[in-house]
Amino acid sequence: MTQAAAVTAALLVIGDEILSGRTQDQNIAYLAGYLTKIGIDMREARVVPDVTAEIVTAVNALRTRYDYLFTTGGIGPTHDDITADAVAEALGVEISEDPRAIKLLLERMKPEDLNAARRRMTRIPHGAELVKNRISTAPGFWIANVIVLAGVPAIMQAMLDDVAPKLATGTPMIVETISADSLPEGAYAAALGTLAAVNPELSIGSYPAFRDGGFHNEIVVRGKDKERVAAAVAAIKALLLGLVKARART
Amino acid sequence: MTQAAAVTAALLVIGDEILSGRTQDQNIAYLAGYLTKIGIDMREARVVPDVTAEIVTAVNALRTRYDYLFTTGGIGPTHDDITADAVAEALGVEISEDPRAIKLLLERMKPEDLNAARRRMTRIPHGAELVKNRISTAPGFWIANVIVLAGVPAIMQAMLDDVAPKLATGTPMIVETISADSLPEGAYAAALGTLAAVNPELSIGSYPAFRDGGFHNEIVVRGKDKERVAAAVAAIKALLLGLVKARART
Repeated sequence: MTQAAAVTAALLVIGDEILSGRTQDQNIAYLAGYLTKIGIDMREARVVPDVTAEIVTAVNALRTRYDYLFTTGGIGPTHDDITADAVAEALGVEISEDPRAIKLLLERMKPEDLNAARRRMTRIPHGAELVKNRISTAPGFWIANVIVLAGVPAIMQAMLDDVAPKLATGTPMIVETISADSLPEGAYAAALGTLAAVNPELSIGSYPAFRDGGFHNEIVVRGKDKERVAAAVAAIKALLLGLVKARART
Repeated sequence: MTQAAAVTAALLVIGDEILSGRTQDQNIAYLAGYLTKIGIDMREARVVPDVTAEIVTAVNALRTRYDYLFTTGGIGPTHDDITADAVAEALGVEISEDPRAIKLLLERMKPEDLNAARRRMTRIPHGAELVKNRISTAPGFWIANVIVLAGVPAIMQAMLDDVAPKLATGTPMIVETISADSLPEGAYAAALGTLAAVNPELSIGSYPAFRDGGFHNEIVVRGKDKERVAAAVAAIKALLLGLVKARART
């Protein structure tokens, strides 16, 4: 992997099933965590329906703004799988059945089973590299800075493993989580805000979770400089300890 | 509720924690399913970081395009909670501490605990209605067609219950799911595509799931006309049955 200062990405999730609530998307969280670990910052995600014009518009908005655009969904054999054609349209390139993709499908399929529908899965925009998938062999693809992956999480994850070693990456983000336990956000918000203001190169967030009838908050410090992250974590721990002690006295 | 032909919505999820993979978003799926049930079509979702300019741009892109824009996240007391100010900026309205919101917070908080950080939660754009929250009392708000909800799922859901009876709704979508069991998508894709082409008012989708080492596909028919949905479901069941019988013969 090459190292650059900051490498950015966006994810476009394609599929009516996410927008109808039928399917709980898992790909945003998985890709976000994966990219964070290898030093790529996911800056935006969008979910659009299986409508060509919507996909084309979103692909062009996102690919021009970030170093990489990943897409998930819409590359199967059915009529609602229109991602490959939409990406070709967005990039203004031709698309046709790709002999390399046909060869991959024939590894696990008899030639007589490669019907017209399954041949849809071999439609690849001209100039794209294939992204392999050890589960179903139907490939994704990578063209310019657009990386097209399957929607089924297990297959998407297998494809990501194929692509990841070839991605340019930046300095990995260091992420430290500090439990604020049952201290309410309002008790530490002012001091935390001051700390965030004097550390603009860090991302300091406070995340409430509500369970078992009460709040259980966590503070997360993210940054690329190990020493600055460590210093902020120490300051936050001291702040929280002071607040806990003050509470015990009252 | 009033009834209209088609009511559309988008969701803007605000928060670094989703884009870093720290938190698995649950609000897209919940809101999507909820709106589908009451006859509102969610057409798009976006996730943006805790950055004012990004929120303002996304709010304006989405509120002008759909009947409703929901947002989740960024309305707590900490420095990274900037949604209310960003929405006010997007709409070009003033924002200040709202006496109605202060009153709500004081229902469960002593006046001396209402510090500067907690007062941030009472900043409401001028002209907004409050959206109540029975869990923490800190309100969301509704201004023009923008509905601002909490990010914590339990609180977001409580707020949605407060808002829902006031929303304009369209004809509810009927959703029927048919199991294709282990029939591969490629076996029925062509026939399903034909069926979809002759029923343009229906949304017919095929959704593969991969588990236990094999595919378990489902076909989903969505539409607003009960008889057309039923006819398509019957046709798909007959199609699948024919394919299963053909397989048994070989």
